[in-house]
Amino acid sequence: MTASALAGDLGSIVGAANVEVRPAALVPYRSDATFGFSGTPSAVVRPGCVEEVSQILAWANRHGVPVVPRGAGTSLAAGAVPVRGGIVLALTRMNRIESIDPVDLTAVVQPGVTTQELARAAAGLALHYPPDPGSRHVSTLGGNVATNAGGLHGLKYGNTGGYVLGVQAVLADGEVIRAGGRLLKDVAGYDLVRLLTGSEGTLAVLTELTLALRPAPAAAATGLAYFAGLEAAGDAVRGVIGAGILPATLEFLDAKCIRSVEAHARLGLDTTAGAMLLFGDDGGEAEVRRTVAAMADVMRAHGASSVQVATAAAESDALLAARRCALPALSRLGGATMLEDVGVPRSRLPELVRRIDAIAERHEVTMATFGHAGDGNAHPVGCFAPGDAGQRARVAAAFDDIFAAAIELGGTITGEHGVGAAKLPYLEAQLGPRQTALLAAIKRAFDPAGILNPGKLGS
Amino acid sequence: MTASALAGDLGSIVGAANVEVRPAALVPYRSDATFGFSGTPSAVVRPGCVEEVSQILAWANRHGVPVVPRGAGTSLAAGAVPVRGGIVLALTRMNRIESIDPVDLTAVVQPGVTTQELARAAAGLALHYPPDPGSRHVSTLGGNVATNAGGLHGLKYGNTGGYVLGVQAVLADGEVIRAGGRLLKDVAGYDLVRLLTGSEGTLAVLTELTLALRPAPAAAATGLAYFAGLEAAGDAVRGVIGAGILPATLEFLDAKCIRSVEAHARLGLDTTAGAMLLFGDDGGEAEVRRTVAAMADVMRAHGASSVQVATAAAESDALLAARRCALPALSRLGGATMLEDVGVPRSRLPELVRRIDAIAERHEVTMATFGHAGDGNAHPVGCFAPGDAGQRARVAAAFDDIFAAAIELGGTITGEHGVGAAKLPYLEAQLGPRQTALLAAIKRAFDPAGILNPGKLGS
Repeated sequence: MTASALAGDLGSIVGAANVEVRPAALVPYRSDATFGFSGTPSAVVRPGCVEEVSQILAWANRHGVPVVPRGAGTSLAAGAVPVRGGIVLALTRMNRIESIDPVDLTAVVQPGVTTQELARAAAGLALHYPPDPGSRHVSTLGGNVATNAGGLHGLKYGNTGGYVLGVQAVLADGEVIRAGGRLLKDVAGYDLVRLLTGSEGTLAVLTELTLALRPAPAAAATGLAYFAGLEAAGDAVRGVIGAGILPATLEFLDAKCIRSVEAHARLGLDTTAGAMLLFGDDGGEAEVRRTVAAMADVMRAHGASSVQVATAAAESDALLAARRCALPALSRLGGATMLEDVGVPRSRLPELVRRIDAIAERHEVTMATFGHAGDGNAHPVGCFAPGDAGQRARVAAAFDDIFAAAIELGGTITGEHGVGAAKLPYLEAQLGPRQTALLAAIKRAFDPAGILNPGKLGS
Repeated sequence: MTASALAGDLGSIVGAANVEVRPAALVPYRSDATFGFSGTPSAVVRPGCVEEVSQILAWANRHGVPVVPRGAGTSLAAGAVPVRGGIVLALTRMNRIESIDPVDLTAVVQPGVTTQELARAAAGLALHYPPDPGSRHVSTLGGNVATNAGGLHGLKYGNTGGYVLGVQAVLADGEVIRAGGRLLKDVAGYDLVRLLTGSEGTLAVLTELTLALRPAPAAAATGLAYFAGLEAAGDAVRGVIGAGILPATLEFLDAKCIRSVEAHARLGLDTTAGAMLLFGDDGGEAEVRRTVAAMADVMRAHGASSVQVATAAAESDALLAARRCALPALSRLGGATMLEDVGVPRSRLPELVRRIDAIAERHEVTMATFGHAGDGNAHPVGCFAPGDAGQRARVAAAFDDIFAAAIELGGTITGEHGVGAAKLPYLEAQLGPRQTALLAAIKRAFDPAGILNPGKLGS
């Protein structure tokens, strides 16, 4: 199909102003936030409502044209890259918060609303939307749900998936369904809400989300502790859990991260430390005081060289800044970074990080690791000069070994970023051939023509 | 196949002692806890390990014989009834708690372990398994997971599904897969763990479960409040949520339930009240004192005629006894009961109960309602003389209207009991034809020969 025929067909659905086929205008849609992945879309189309999404999919299904749903394009697994061409379905115009119900504790939103917009709107009503992915300032809720995004508060609050009560979704042939609703309990049928959550745009396009909210916690506090190494930090994590605490925050940075962050952001961190833990909780004031003080005691008992606690919001944010700017700081080290997302049972995290360090040394690459100590999810970051193909290949080879190590420790190749195109080659190593075949069978049941985000899950 | 051939084939897998084909021995497996549903199994087989389950399914798949997985048989939706005959796969011999890990906060169990056994074993390690279905004394975890069972603490803690981290499952052809694991975060692939959870034995047979635990709460307290009617109680529920409290317990009984329970159990309840709320919380001691006192204040502010609070465990249990014995008490009223399980958004619960009362009156049946005020899940109970076919038909007709009312209010025909054979005729009214067809397509992807629990979900 010629570009002008494409523009004509799609323009008749969404209006000419909401279709782009000019190569220069398509450049931003060739890739997402993942290093080294790009595709060649033939159009980007920006629907304004579910009816337009429905018509676009019906058209694409008839013509066998791939459709790649896209929110803010912050995927770190090439989930939004049009690896097989086709049209990018940009859902950012559908950015309305439809309603927030303070009795049902639900929000109904369009997929293009950003995580932060919902969090702020909820906070204005003394409500709380806990999922908190790193890119929450720009990432969209549609993308969060499509990837079952994690974040800094997963240990206490769970991931995005735990907050999805209902969806409106457009199937590959354009038919619109609703699954779930403003209900905390609904067991009528297989759990399509949870099947679509995390399906990365390969089974249907999400056009409306019903999300659970919670009452806003009255208080919050954050603490920071330095350790000689990750072993001691890991023991402190065991100590926190052993003390009966399930905190809102329990994050770690290794020595390389600490030094990179300090060089980048001058936060006054102790660059001689071998590891750092950020811990925190929220809830009732007395409870928060009690749990954070108890965690500080646990840190000291496990040899923390220095423990700071902040109860004011600004001070807390300052402590958390070290964690939040770890990735930008590391990207300064070598010029380019590849970020990974392996997960293991909480108790195996020290062993995983030990193996990551050994693997990095064996492949002679610079690698630093930070992540979620509470839920066993580590983000090793490989740093390299963008022009150095050898260095880059060594980082990739190191990641191959890291995936194998995570699987061997009973873990996963992706804790929260998703599979996308980037992890697809590694998926079968984790799931085995039969489970991989089951995913493909589910994909065919939803999308027989294979138009939805092809080259990703289920392909 | 003759009974003796069947006994021979199955006996060669599990040993003759673990197969029954004599009609008298099969009587207990003809039905479950659902009134009015029964089937005719040709055998019951009791495997002792996953390899035996695998061989049984491979055999059944080859011969096209239906297999009905069964735990304790406490289904209230005819989920364990062999409505199309075949063999009942009783999993109660597989009743080992494999491990409990106090650092990973996980339990690995076989499907025949009862809910209460796990809760007790966890409590012995100062851990907490929150899901708490009414039949927890006898119900098995395999059944809980297969039905995504709810319970009294869903508002704060969620349902069983929120605690399932991983499963070992045997597919229809006998192949064994593992999905998920001892991981809080794992987004590698479509969420098969959540798809199998609540699939009611129609997609695979669960042979091992990895479940999440939490630290045991340090304290708990329960309160009871009487109201003039359900409207006032509903306003109090709104008041609790509006006060920023998400309590562990928030249950209601209507006037008929209160009077039946009192007649049955002599607990000293106020039989002049129009409605009763049970409320409670658990957690840190100070927090529990604060939230339960705040809830008591909310109750009084909404016109509660009397509010009692119990902090000692025995006293708490005494208050909760009113809720726990509602069903046995009601079954005394007319002799037989049919119990339903509709759910609506929390804010619509008073409207739902109003409609239930009007429907019962219109159909001239005795109906009482209790349930989970916090999560919008109501259990209307129709009472009738077992021999009175006309009365029984009127109860069934009333339930038809109640299902329609729940759907109209944005709700569900089943909040926590499941679809089974009992609700299957009503499912399409809630899901619509396309979503029902999607369930069938998923079923075919897992079980092309249709041997797993046929006549239930996906059929």
